[in-house]
Formats: sequence, C-alpha cells, structure tokens
Amino acid sequence: MSQEKKDSLYVQSVEKAFKVLAIFNAQQRALSLTDVTKLTGYNKSAAQRFCYTLEKLGFLRRCHNSSDFELTAKTTEIGARFIESNALVRRARPYLHTLSLKTEGATTLSILDGNEVIFVSRFLGRDVLDTTVTVGSRLPIYCTASGRAAASLLDDQQLDAVLAAQDWQQRTPETNIDQQQIKQQILDCQRYGYAVVKDQYVMADLSLSVPIYDSQSDLRGAINLAVTTANYSQQQLIDKYLALVQSTARAINS
Amino acid sequence: MSQEKKDSLYVQSVEKAFKVLAIFNAQQRALSLTDVTKLTGYNKSAAQRFCYTLEKLGFLRRCHNSSDFELTAKTTEIGARFIESNALVRRARPYLHTLSLKTEGATTLSILDGNEVIFVSRFLGRDVLDTTVTVGSRLPIYCTASGRAAASLLDDQQLDAVLAAQDWQQRTPETNIDQQQIKQQILDCQRYGYAVVKDQYVMADLSLSVPIYDSQSDLRGAINLAVTTANYSQQQLIDKYLALVQSTARAINS
Repeated sequence: MSQEKKDSLYVQSVEKAFKVLAIFNAQQRALSLTDVTKLTGYNKSAAQRFCYTLEKLGFLRRCHNSSDFELTAKTTEIGARFIESNALVRRARPYLHTLSLKTEGATTLSILDGNEVIFVSRFLGRDVLDTTVTVGSRLPIYCTASGRAAASLLDDQQLDAVLAAQDWQQRTPETNIDQQQIKQQILDCQRYGYAVVKDQYVMADLSLSVPIYDSQSDLRGAINLAVTTANYSQQQLIDKYLALVQSTARAINS
Repeated sequence: MSQEKKDSLYVQSVEKAFKVLAIFNAQQRALSLTDVTKLTGYNKSAAQRFCYTLEKLGFLRRCHNSSDFELTAKTTEIGARFIESNALVRRARPYLHTLSLKTEGATTLSILDGNEVIFVSRFLGRDVLDTTVTVGSRLPIYCTASGRAAASLLDDQQLDAVLAAQDWQQRTPETNIDQQQIKQQILDCQRYGYAVVKDQYVMADLSLSVPIYDSQSDLRGAINLAVTTANYSQQQLIDKYLALVQSTARAINS
C-alpha cells in the first residue's frame, strides 16, 4: 500500500480522543474544559466534542460537585482484555504469584514497548509494600533491571537506538546515567542472562531480572524480582534467588 | 444544552474505534480484518481504517507470522492513569495489600459501574491462587459479594433497576438466580453492613464484602476478602475476619 493511501486510512479523531485520555494522571486528576484545551492544544470546540464523546462512552465523568472531568473505572477494561487475551501474560501470572510467595518480594512481568517497558503483571510480597507501580506503568530502560534485561534481547543496532532515545534523568542520587556504562551492563546481561539494579529508579529497591522472549508472539520482556536493600545485599539476592528466577523464566518460556 | 446540540458534539468514529478494541478477549485473541467486520458490523473499508489507526497509535499490532491483529501492552496504560489518579483507589491499595497479607486471602476494591462492578485493585494471598480475575474485570451484581455490597448503597428504585438489568445466569450449580431473594440479601447487607457469598460466581469461592462510599468522589464500591471453601465455612470467615474487613473499610473511608 502506498504511503498516500495509508494516510488516507488514518482517522485523526481517534488519535485526538486518546490524547484527551492521556493528559490525566496523578498530578492532573480533574480537568476543566479550559485545562483540556491547554494540555491538548485543541480549540475549545474540539475539546468539548471529545470530552462529551468520552463522557458518553463512559471513560470520563464529571467530578462530584464540579464540572471538571476525571477518568472512570471503565478505562481499566481495555487493558484487562489484553491481560486476559495475551498468552504470555496468562502463562506467566501463576508463576509470578508463586515466585512472590516464595521470596516475599514483588514480582513483575514487563514487555518491551518502544524505548520503555510496560508492567503487565505484578504481585507484591511481604518484603515490598510499594503499591504505586502497577500494571500499565511504563518505565525507562536505563535505570530498571526489567528494562535492561528486556533490552538485552535486542541486536546491537536496536540497542543503540533504544539507548539514544532514553530520557537520561538522575532518578535517585545513585542513578547511573553514563550511556556507555549502561550499554556494557546490558551486554553483560546478554552474556550472563540476568540484570541486577540497586537504588537506580527509586531508593531502597534491589531488583533482579531475567529476559523473557516469547517466540510465538515475538514479544521481548523480562521477569523481575524486587526486594528491599534493607533485607539483602546485591550478592545475597543473587546467591539466594537467581536460580529460582531463572527457572521461573524457563517455565514461562516453555 | 439541547439534545440536538449535544448530539452534534458526539464523534461517532471515537465510539467505533473503542468498539474495535472491545471485540478482543480471551476467546478472540487474534482477529483478521474479516473477523473485525463480522464482529463489529462495520464494512471492510471502515474496519480497515480503524484497525490501521489503532495499529498506528500502538494499541493493536500484527500477530507474529500472520496478518491478524491483537491487542498490545499499551492498552494497559489508559487504565493505569485512572488507577494512579483516583484518590479512592490510591488510598485503598496499601490497606488491601495489608489485609491480604494478614488473612492470606485475595482482597479487592471494586467500583459500581452501571449494573456491574469493576475490579480496580486486587491482591492475591497464599489461600487464593486464582490469577484470572484481575484489575479491569467486570463482574455482575447478583452473584458476587462485591456487587451485592456495592448495590446496597443504592436507593430502592436504583436497586430495582440494577437487579432488573442483571443477566440472571446460573454461573455455578449453586448460583441463586431468584431476584426477590437476592434483593432481600442486598437489603440485609444494607442493614448489617456486609455481604457473604459462597460458590455463586465460581465454585470454592467464599467472599466477604463491605460497602465503600467515597463522599468526595461520589463513588460507590466495596472491598472484598475472598478465601477458599476448603479452609473456611461461611460462619468461620465471618467470626474470624468481619471485624478486620470492616475496620479496613473504615480506614479507607476516613
């Protein structure tokens, strides 16, 4: 199909509707029509049409005692259909839950999406109580064990492109933002089959990840075990749980 | 605003795009363009336009080794923004996680949406291993403790309307589909402050729910503790954990 033909297939208003949903977040929970125009760059009439339509469809509602808009619980249904329909996610969940129970840590399956990983399954244990990172959270490659493990499945050219596209922020005082060093650590993960990261995305987090490649779906991802630095050193985590995390990955892949 | 003016605000193509996303599920994981036309009722040109647009936006992708479409991990981001931005959900999560750790059961926060409840937070324990019901799952009122507890917050007229709209299916051999009896049980929940349900939605499930009403957001919902019938009788569950579930609900509401 020619590019011209393809572009005539593109329905602009669908993009616009998703952009309206995407401006809501923890800092922007309730937005007026004026906020929506500012944050999307749409004119007032367009903002009104998309908010009205999304409200009718049940994805937005008016806040209590205000005419501001907020997201509804119905927005979770779209992703739930992916979670229930994706073979890799379905296969991984019982294993991740068991791994969390055995280790008392938090376990996660994440899938590479562009230059980031998206968490598609997560189980918390007694050792990790942080409930803020959840299914649907999108995390960078450079400062997460999941990201590095998933990126280790890329070829050299793809890896360079992904690293060049990272937003190299100092997330914690410990975050390593040296692109060459991170690349070397990802190549080490390629060689040894696991990535470990400490205090890189948030302080007190110690994470061990093993890459997952699902050949049937061609999805690249990683499973991760997170514990707190209060309970383990990096070496203790590896000694105690690397074999278990690796055998969990093998069970999911098989 | 007049109805005519309102309807001119409605963007039909946004509805159509969401309908395409909604046809994918555990039974329909990979769909050809022909499948999409059949399941949506759109003509081939419309199906092609919406699939192309959703693929460009990253919510659909081609299956490996096939031209069929499937949902992507990116679909989970939309609901994640609700999860991270909704004050009730944020407040409830650490309490639900603690309740799951203390009881070894599965804990859930669900929110009333039309005639059903949607699970917006869920933590599994050692006692409940079923990973299939997840955030974003939509469950009926009549055969779930969460649904009955949430519906107990409705006034009589709303309750009758919700019950009339249920799809009264025999989910298990034990499911009670007597509308008058269910209504009475919901009125009992209104009076005593909790609902208990056994083997109604799936066999071996024993669930105890307490209603949650968030006055700031005007959201009606419930928190639920699920254990297996192998470990508890209905009375044992109430004796052991009702006070704890109720105090968890009070902590979330306060």
